[in-house]
Amino acid sequence: MAPERGGGGPKSLQALVEQLERLPGIGPRSATRLAHHLVRVPEADALMLADAIRAARARIRPCSQCRAPSESDPCATCADTARDRSLLLIVETPRDLYAVDATGAYSGLYFVLGARLSPLEGIDRSALDLGALERRAAQDDVAEVCIGTNPDLEGDGTALALLEALERVNAARREHGGAPVRVTRLARGLPTGGQIEYQSASAIADAFEGRRSAES
Amino acid sequence: MAPERGGGGPKSLQALVEQLERLPGIGPRSATRLAHHLVRVPEADALMLADAIRAARARIRPCSQCRAPSESDPCATCADTARDRSLLLIVETPRDLYAVDATGAYSGLYFVLGARLSPLEGIDRSALDLGALERRAAQDDVAEVCIGTNPDLEGDGTALALLEALERVNAARREHGGAPVRVTRLARGLPTGGQIEYQSASAIADAFEGRRSAES
Repeated sequence: MAPERGGGGPKSLQALVEQLERLPGIGPRSATRLAHHLVRVPEADALMLADAIRAARARIRPCSQCRAPSESDPCATCADTARDRSLLLIVETPRDLYAVDATGAYSGLYFVLGARLSPLEGIDRSALDLGALERRAAQDDVAEVCIGTNPDLEGDGTALALLEALERVNAARREHGGAPVRVTRLARGLPTGGQIEYQSASAIADAFEGRRSAES
Repeated sequence: MAPERGGGGPKSLQALVEQLERLPGIGPRSATRLAHHLVRVPEADALMLADAIRAARARIRPCSQCRAPSESDPCATCADTARDRSLLLIVETPRDLYAVDATGAYSGLYFVLGARLSPLEGIDRSALDLGALERRAAQDDVAEVCIGTNPDLEGDGTALALLEALERVNAARREHGGAPVRVTRLARGLPTGGQIEYQSASAIADAFEGRRSAES
């Protein structure tokens, strides 16, 4: 067998497969399929992807305030004077931020953790950069910090670490004679539009535990 | 809501999502996940992917003989004088070619169709470029052409179109007083290593229909 055909195709094709395999959720088979697609389509189409990667990396930096990817610093959201600057919502990822923001139901600012505790994946508190959160929450205009981690095992573990960090913020605030920030958390219960019969046992248990008075 | 956050993130991030969405098997959610990954990892890692795409496109062209992607023309396989040049195996994709070649059981040359008939997807005979196949099969040193399309509905339909094209080749060969090429097809039956109870009805029916004498 000719060496060029060794592991399946020319060297630069195999190099492309290797790079694609490093993407999350892309296994060897998908990477091979994508690489072959990229060498088969019109060259301009493939280069548009390469250029989009380069352009995104050249233009996007984490916002120094909320840490969401942005082409400006502070980002448009953090710079928006119409938003409630006393309210800070902590989310795990920028995608969570966009999902919340798309609802239009939240008009405060954000803080993107960029990580979540996951002992199984070996992700511990050092990945959370709690110091950055503490500095942000210590800023004078912050009055309330809402924890918006995901409603699952890792999100709940992460929330505990955030609570501790925010306690440190409040201890320092009190020490300097300031008012503590109010720490809140997104409500847990039945998802509006969902059906009870399809909810998990823990979602239903949470909904019961968090039941509220229905009397007006 | 600030315009930059519109559909979810800065413009160059959204442009990257759009390019990733054009890849086969990558839906909007995967594209978003991949784009966020690419702006979060170390810049060098993201640029390695962009560069791998550029390098592959700069170096790889279809071999003029077999049409597999190659950095040389003819490709290493077609240029390999140790291979049996009288034998031509038609496969649908370069990936099929690599799978066959990795077995070491085939030492002839290849011809990559690059497409398969699929009426449901609107892919008709014009996509097959049968003219290129006919020119290749008409070359003097070809004595046998084996049809190696996939053993499924589209592969069988494609095989029919190939048979007709090869009949045209043989008609022309006969007209010029030459010997016709032998046209064969990969055997259909039970896959070695598989288990009968897990085979499809059509695979078992094929295996029975194609049964061979077990007497020595």
